[in-house]
Amino acid sequence: MLHLQSESQVRWLRQVDEHLPEILIDHAHCEHKAAATAMSLFGAYVDCRELTREMTVIIQEELEHFHMVLDLLERREIPFRKLRPGDYGRRLNQLVRPHEPYRAVDRLLIAGLIEARSCERFKLLRDHVQDAELKEFYGSLFESEARHHTTYVRLARLFQDAEEVRLRLDELSAQEAEIIAIGNPLPRMHS
Amino acid sequence: MLHLQSESQVRWLRQVDEHLPEILIDHAHCEHKAAATAMSLFGAYVDCRELTREMTVIIQEELEHFHMVLDLLERREIPFRKLRPGDYGRRLNQLVRPHEPYRAVDRLLIAGLIEARSCERFKLLRDHVQDAELKEFYGSLFESEARHHTTYVRLARLFQDAEEVRLRLDELSAQEAEIIAIGNPLPRMHS
Repeated sequence: MLHLQSESQVRWLRQVDEHLPEILIDHAHCEHKAAATAMSLFGAYVDCRELTREMTVIIQEELEHFHMVLDLLERREIPFRKLRPGDYGRRLNQLVRPHEPYRAVDRLLIAGLIEARSCERFKLLRDHVQDAELKEFYGSLFESEARHHTTYVRLARLFQDAEEVRLRLDELSAQEAEIIAIGNPLPRMHS
Repeated sequence: MLHLQSESQVRWLRQVDEHLPEILIDHAHCEHKAAATAMSLFGAYVDCRELTREMTVIIQEELEHFHMVLDLLERREIPFRKLRPGDYGRRLNQLVRPHEPYRAVDRLLIAGLIEARSCERFKLLRDHVQDAELKEFYGSLFESEARHHTTYVRLARLFQDAEEVRLRLDELSAQEAEIIAIGNPLPRMHS
């Protein structure tokens, strides 16, 4: 259902255990970036009513999650700060084809794959972490990430037919699996 | 209260009367652009909690207004479409000083002045248009624009002291009045 072609590795859970505060800070940044991506898609396809309606919902939910993570950081007295980004998002965005309608399809599918990977990792974190508050928090988030994934894939079908979207999603998710397998020494939600 | 140094001219109301559908379409774009501006400020000052809280409220309200204008266009069977932008926003944004904290102050004050001008024009439209639905619609919007203006000016004071912000607001609002006086042959909310 999530169209992912790999599972996260134990290596990443070790990063989480060793750098939980930084992972939490990066999580807040991810929620902001997800909202900013939805706003950017809103602007690029502003004349597509179905897309702007769905982006409005996603923007609202991601910003709500951002503030939830910031509240959690505050309760733990972890100061929120800017972070050097990992290169997961940048590498994925390099795969976007430049011309329409391919560009729209790729941007939507990549946004959808990032949601899928977040969903997979939130589920993993829910089962992995001992901290009861975090366990519940991650459990509450993964359902909305799965829903956003489905929305993005459905919206891509407004720009190309279902079969072409399916083939492209296979290609992009294979590349996503390669990118996530490389990992990153910086502890991040998508390292 | 709105810190504007001029009133809109009769010339603009003539543009409205002659090109109402295009003004309505541009209004929708303005709501989107206001949301995108707030998202951009959110990202630039993501580590300022008060700012991200206020931007979240503004983003949500502007997107809601966007959909209200689109519903109104649909009821009137006016097809929504992309429009060549006027140059009001571009000219204002050229006034932003490049270095912090001046950049933050200028971006916030300019966002606030655009809200102020929108507020002034919605009030003018409410009193000018004959159409009962539009009269009520514009009446319902100008209060939130005034509130957004106040929020932006208050946030600027997080970056510089109140007296410096006041002086800069005077300078920028004088330049805003010059830009709006030039006008634009394209019928727009800020022409």
